[in-house]
Amino acid sequence: MDSCASLIAEHPHRLPPIQAASTRRRTLAIGLIGPGRVGGVLLTQLRAAQDRLARETGLELQLRGVAASRRMWLDCDDAELNAQHDAQTWRPTDLYEFAAYIRGDDRRHAMLIDCSANEDVASQYPYWLASGLHVVTPNKLASSGPLSRWQAIRAAGSHGGRFRYEATVCAGLPVVQTLRDLLDTGDQLLSVEGMFSGTLAWLCCQFDGSRPFSELVREAHALGYTEPDPRDDLSGMDVARKLVILAREAGWPLSLQDVPVESLVPTHLKALPLDEFMQRLDELDAPMAERLAAAQAAHGVLRHVASLDHHGHAQVRLQALPAAHPFAHTRLTDNIVQFRTQRYRDNPLLVQGPGAGPEVTAAGVFADLLRIAESLGVRA
Amino acid sequence: MDSCASLIAEHPHRLPPIQAASTRRRTLAIGLIGPGRVGGVLLTQLRAAQDRLARETGLELQLRGVAASRRMWLDCDDAELNAQHDAQTWRPTDLYEFAAYIRGDDRRHAMLIDCSANEDVASQYPYWLASGLHVVTPNKLASSGPLSRWQAIRAAGSHGGRFRYEATVCAGLPVVQTLRDLLDTGDQLLSVEGMFSGTLAWLCCQFDGSRPFSELVREAHALGYTEPDPRDDLSGMDVARKLVILAREAGWPLSLQDVPVESLVPTHLKALPLDEFMQRLDELDAPMAERLAAAQAAHGVLRHVASLDHHGHAQVRLQALPAAHPFAHTRLTDNIVQFRTQRYRDNPLLVQGPGAGPEVTAAGVFADLLRIAESLGVRA
Repeated sequence: MDSCASLIAEHPHRLPPIQAASTRRRTLAIGLIGPGRVGGVLLTQLRAAQDRLARETGLELQLRGVAASRRMWLDCDDAELNAQHDAQTWRPTDLYEFAAYIRGDDRRHAMLIDCSANEDVASQYPYWLASGLHVVTPNKLASSGPLSRWQAIRAAGSHGGRFRYEATVCAGLPVVQTLRDLLDTGDQLLSVEGMFSGTLAWLCCQFDGSRPFSELVREAHALGYTEPDPRDDLSGMDVARKLVILAREAGWPLSLQDVPVESLVPTHLKALPLDEFMQRLDELDAPMAERLAAAQAAHGVLRHVASLDHHGHAQVRLQALPAAHPFAHTRLTDNIVQFRTQRYRDNPLLVQGPGAGPEVTAAGVFADLLRIAESLGVRA
Repeated sequence: MDSCASLIAEHPHRLPPIQAASTRRRTLAIGLIGPGRVGGVLLTQLRAAQDRLARETGLELQLRGVAASRRMWLDCDDAELNAQHDAQTWRPTDLYEFAAYIRGDDRRHAMLIDCSANEDVASQYPYWLASGLHVVTPNKLASSGPLSRWQAIRAAGSHGGRFRYEATVCAGLPVVQTLRDLLDTGDQLLSVEGMFSGTLAWLCCQFDGSRPFSELVREAHALGYTEPDPRDDLSGMDVARKLVILAREAGWPLSLQDVPVESLVPTHLKALPLDEFMQRLDELDAPMAERLAAAQAAHGVLRHVASLDHHGHAQVRLQALPAAHPFAHTRLTDNIVQFRTQRYRDNPLLVQGPGAGPEVTAAGVFADLLRIAESLGVRA
């Protein structure tokens, strides 16, 4: 009681300020793997923000290395040359060397950003995390790949560096973080439903019976909305990967093979060479027209939906939805995600917007980087 | 070059792991001000999550005190009594004493959660933050109130404790954090548009000409969708406060008086006693019917929209929107926010869902608490 009394005798605004995290100068060493479309844009975004972040948040970002598939650059190789952003000295890529150099031996804060789509890189995450390196990636291989590797990554991350991957689902849209916040604050997830493919969303929204489905696929292909091989979109597998990521985030030990996926590609067209498939594209029309007619007969719309229920059952399929359903009104190639929880039971929580593209994907990676940076303490 | 060579000779997964923030045990002392509807639900949410957070994240939440308007409880007052949640010893409320006790003198991490709607409490934030206390609140007074106080809070926060207020705009929906992420990652805000009042959203969605506006207001009042005095919703002032919060978050030094607000309450009804206003409610019908007719003549819908443009101009008004506009399809009392930025220029980023209610509001406060907790270092 005495200590209590003495404590409350003082007034808080007379207490000496504590130096708080927000002003402590922190340095974060960064190594980028995969300077491709997303990686390249990310480098530009990081350079543009560097001074502002140092000034406003005390965070100093240090790009210490970049690794492409064949060659890597380390900022120790030639300080002078490296001072100029374009001219840099390169050596053959060695992931072990690269990680060890970024990681350093001075207990610095260090992060590897994996913008590659490379299995060999993803398989390094557990080692990197265990060694204290933070890892951020827009690459789905690790979080939707083999469950054993995912569990190794989680285990390593819980005792080492931090692992974040917001951009793996809907790029820069706040989806993974929103799900995490719902669960961390003790809400119970009842269902997640979404359209995670801008291509399939666009096709379904355009497909109203006025034009055959194949014509729309050709148009999307011409507009660059699809992968070079449209079957990579039409198969629904990329959507299923994103659903697996959200399911695992929600605590369900799912793998890709646990997810029934309705492909829009008839079985007999799956193995064909691309050009032949494109020629026989109109063989998609009859089955799709049938599905659309059924949906319209029920005064609904046809949408390709990924869903996870509260038993951890996941599926990806064409669904007839009521015309008033929010998925009926998405725009262009928008992605949309709907969280139904105990707290959002009657009206779900919705996030909608473009879910692909280098700019917004890089921004999603950047936001993860900042989230980790916020949690960094000062190290001498 | 030698240090470089020696560094990269090692392999990262042979390096000794660093103990990372995620597993460092951290204790956060918490003082709750305003154990009302939201504060009460928050206490329940915190108690329910306490063990899980300690186990999974190493974060130990310690509720050290609760302050109501007249009485406060401090956990030093009677450890035994306080061990039982319901029976507690109380003393007269003194905010200085309360803050000083929660803050302590042992360099602990400490946070005050303000669930009151009290000016005296809000005016303490700068002192609390300067003294190293973190502050989280769902209360709009500080972030939409006098600009000078807001700037004092920001200044204090930048050198002391952290201040977060996600729940001030749309409760638990990720709105303030989403805007912050967009800006922190270097995006440029072009516009924010939103329906921040579930009541006005419901009224506008229901108002299709089939029933007079006054009848809908009476129904909303009976359903408990409105404040006890519906004018508190119809005036649009609460919406304007939320817009001011987002504008300031976006860097615009706006105050409430800088925002033109279109009230749905005719001037001559503003000052009337409540019962008289309710009797004369049908005087709203003619002007509203006129606005609806104009919107419908343009094949649009009538919505009450808050908007901020890229010049920092804010306004709150009735707008005729095209039937395809996302604001035309919100459900029940949903809130909706649309961010248009350089990266989300063609298709904006949308967040939609219930934006009020104790459960989701408390969850928004809880998420802020966790965001701050993530950034806490270990203190001996």
